[in-house]
Amino acid sequence: GAAPAIVSAQPAIRWRCASSFPRALDTIYGGAEVFAKFVSDATGGRFQISVHPGGELMPAFGVVDGVQAGTVECAHTCAYYFFGKDDTFAIGTAIPFGLNSRQLTAWYYEGNGLKLFREFYDAYNIVNFPCGNSGAQMGGWYRKEIKSPADLQGLKFRVGGFAGKVMSKLGAVPQMIPGGEIYQALERGTIDAVEWVGPYDDEKLGFQRVAPFYYYPGWWEGGAQIDLYVNKAAFNALPNEYKAIVTAAASHAHTNMQAMYDVRNPQALKRLVAGGTKLEAFPRSVMDAAFRASMELYKELNDTNPRWKKIYEDYAAFRRDANLWFRFTEARFDSYMQAARL
Amino acid sequence: GAAPAIVSAQPAIRWRCASSFPRALDTIYGGAEVFAKFVSDATGGRFQISVHPGGELMPAFGVVDGVQAGTVECAHTCAYYFFGKDDTFAIGTAIPFGLNSRQLTAWYYEGNGLKLFREFYDAYNIVNFPCGNSGAQMGGWYRKEIKSPADLQGLKFRVGGFAGKVMSKLGAVPQMIPGGEIYQALERGTIDAVEWVGPYDDEKLGFQRVAPFYYYPGWWEGGAQIDLYVNKAAFNALPNEYKAIVTAAASHAHTNMQAMYDVRNPQALKRLVAGGTKLEAFPRSVMDAAFRASMELYKELNDTNPRWKKIYEDYAAFRRDANLWFRFTEARFDSYMQAARL
Repeated sequence: GAAPAIVSAQPAIRWRCASSFPRALDTIYGGAEVFAKFVSDATGGRFQISVHPGGELMPAFGVVDGVQAGTVECAHTCAYYFFGKDDTFAIGTAIPFGLNSRQLTAWYYEGNGLKLFREFYDAYNIVNFPCGNSGAQMGGWYRKEIKSPADLQGLKFRVGGFAGKVMSKLGAVPQMIPGGEIYQALERGTIDAVEWVGPYDDEKLGFQRVAPFYYYPGWWEGGAQIDLYVNKAAFNALPNEYKAIVTAAASHAHTNMQAMYDVRNPQALKRLVAGGTKLEAFPRSVMDAAFRASMELYKELNDTNPRWKKIYEDYAAFRRDANLWFRFTEARFDSYMQAARL
Repeated sequence: GAAPAIVSAQPAIRWRCASSFPRALDTIYGGAEVFAKFVSDATGGRFQISVHPGGELMPAFGVVDGVQAGTVECAHTCAYYFFGKDDTFAIGTAIPFGLNSRQLTAWYYEGNGLKLFREFYDAYNIVNFPCGNSGAQMGGWYRKEIKSPADLQGLKFRVGGFAGKVMSKLGAVPQMIPGGEIYQALERGTIDAVEWVGPYDDEKLGFQRVAPFYYYPGWWEGGAQIDLYVNKAAFNALPNEYKAIVTAAASHAHTNMQAMYDVRNPQALKRLVAGGTKLEAFPRSVMDAAFRASMELYKELNDTNPRWKKIYEDYAAFRRDANLWFRFTEARFDSYMQAARL
C-alpha cells in the first residue's frame, strides 16, 4: 500500500521533437505522439514533448543536423534517410535482405545493436532509441509486370535512399521524389513504379488508381525501424528517473507502432484487392539477382568503410543465426496457419 | 532545457510480485525483474517491486488467488495455467493453432485483446498487462518418432494445461508433472514425451540426454504470452504517473523478453544439434488431426461458455485477417531469407 508522501523535486522540462513524417501518416507519425504522451503521463505533465511534423521546424531530412546541433532536443525519423552522411546509417533502419521486424528488435535490445549504434551515433551527439517498426514492406506499385531482371532495365523507380544503390546495380533508375508528388509522376508516366510502405499507408496516396500491379516482398525493407534520436547533452541533463521514463516510453511506442501496422494493413489489403489491385510475388530470378547485388554492395562497403564493417559484421552474424532458428518452429507454425482454413 | 525545479509529492510504495517461475529460467523469470527495475529507475527508487520466485510467497499456480485476494499486489504468470477456473484464461497466453507472438501483441495493443481481457479479469480483481512472450515454442522431446496420428495413441505426454484437452482428443494421455521431476520421469520411461519451451530453456533441463527426437512446431503455443497481473485496488490507488510508468515498464519487459528468447534460442539450438539431437517436423497428418481436434474443442466452448465465446470470436476474426496479410510480404521475405546462404 501507499506509505506517507515523500517530497521530491522534479524539474519541469519542455522538449521539441522534429518528426520526418507528415501528420497524415497516423501510424508512423503517431509513434512519436504515443511516446510523448507516455512521457507526459509518467511525469504528471512535468516533462512535455511537443511533436512537429516534417518541415515545420526544419526540413524533414534535416533532423539529424537539428539534433546534432541541439536546435531540437529530439527527432523521430528513419536512419536510412541519412546514408549520404555515412552508409552505416542504413543498417539502423533496414538494408536489402536484412533482418525482419522481430529479429531487428532482438538484435537491438538483446544483441549488440543498441550498443554498437550508441557508439556510432556518439559522433553525431545522438542517443538513439528504437521507436517503431513498419514490418516487412511491400515491393511497390508497377505500371507493368516484372517477369525477370530484364524488366528492371531502365525502370524509373521511386525508391527510398540506400536501396537505390542496389536498384542501380540491377539497371533500374532510382528516383527521389517527395511523397506529395509521387502520385502525379506515376499517373503521367514520368516514373514507372513506386515503393512507399504497405497497404495501409499506400492506399492513402492512391497509387492503386494509376498502377495495377502490387508486388511483394519489399526485399529492401524486411522490417524498417523508426528511431528516436535524442541530443546527447539534453539526454545527459535529464534526472535518472526521466532517462528511464524516456527509455520505457520509447519501447512502448516501438512495439505499439508495429501493432498499429499489423492491425491496419490486413483491412487495407482486403480493400485494395477488392478494388482490383493485382498482388504479385517478385519472380525468383529477380529476388536472386537483387540478393547477389546486395551482397556485392555489402562487400564493397566492408572494404571501404570501417564504421559500416564493424556494425555490419555483427548484424550479419546475427542474421545468419536468427534465420537458422526461425526456419524451424516459427516458420512451420506460420506457414501452417497461413494455409489453414480459418 | 531544464526549468526551475517544481516541488512535487510522490508516495513511496512497495509491492510484492509473485512469479510462477523458478529463478533459474532467466528469460521468463527475468521479465518480471526487467519490469521491476524500470519502475524503480523511473521513480528514483520510490516505487519498489520485489520479485519472488514460484513457491516463495505462495504456490506457483496460486498467484491468481493471491492477486485476487490482495495477498500480493501483483504476479507474473501465464494465464493458461488457470484454465481450470475458466477456459477463457487460455486465450490470454496461447491456444492450439492460435496467434503467433507478433500477432498476439498486435491484438492486445491495437486490436480488442486488452480491452476484452480487462473486462474478463475484472471479476478476479485483476488489471492485466502483456509482459513477455516466448515466441513459437518447440513441440517437445520424444523417445520414439511420431510418424502419424496413430503414434499419439496412449502416448504419456507431459504437456501444459489447456493443450492437454486437444491431446486427449487425439488419444494421448496428458500428464501434469512439476518442472523439477520431468527429467527423471522421462529417463525412466514413466512418460514418453515432454514439451517445455524451446531450445534455451529445454537445454537447461537436460531432456536431450534422455530423448533423441525434438519435434516442431509446438502447434499449441505459436507465441505464448506472459502476463503481469495487478490487483485492481492496488492499481487504482496509484497516482496517475505511476500508472503510466507501470504500463510503459510492462511494455518494455514484454518486448525485451521476446528479444531475450530470440537471441538465446539460436545458440542453444546449435549446441543441441551438435550434441546429436534429431530435429523433426510433425507430419502433416498429425498437424491436420490436431487442427481438427482444436477447432472441435473451440466449437464446444463457444456453445457452452459465453465468456470464452465473446473473446474467442474476436480473436478468431483477428487471426483470420492477420494470417491473410502475413502470408504475402512477411512470409515471402522470411522464407527467402531462411533459404538463403547467409
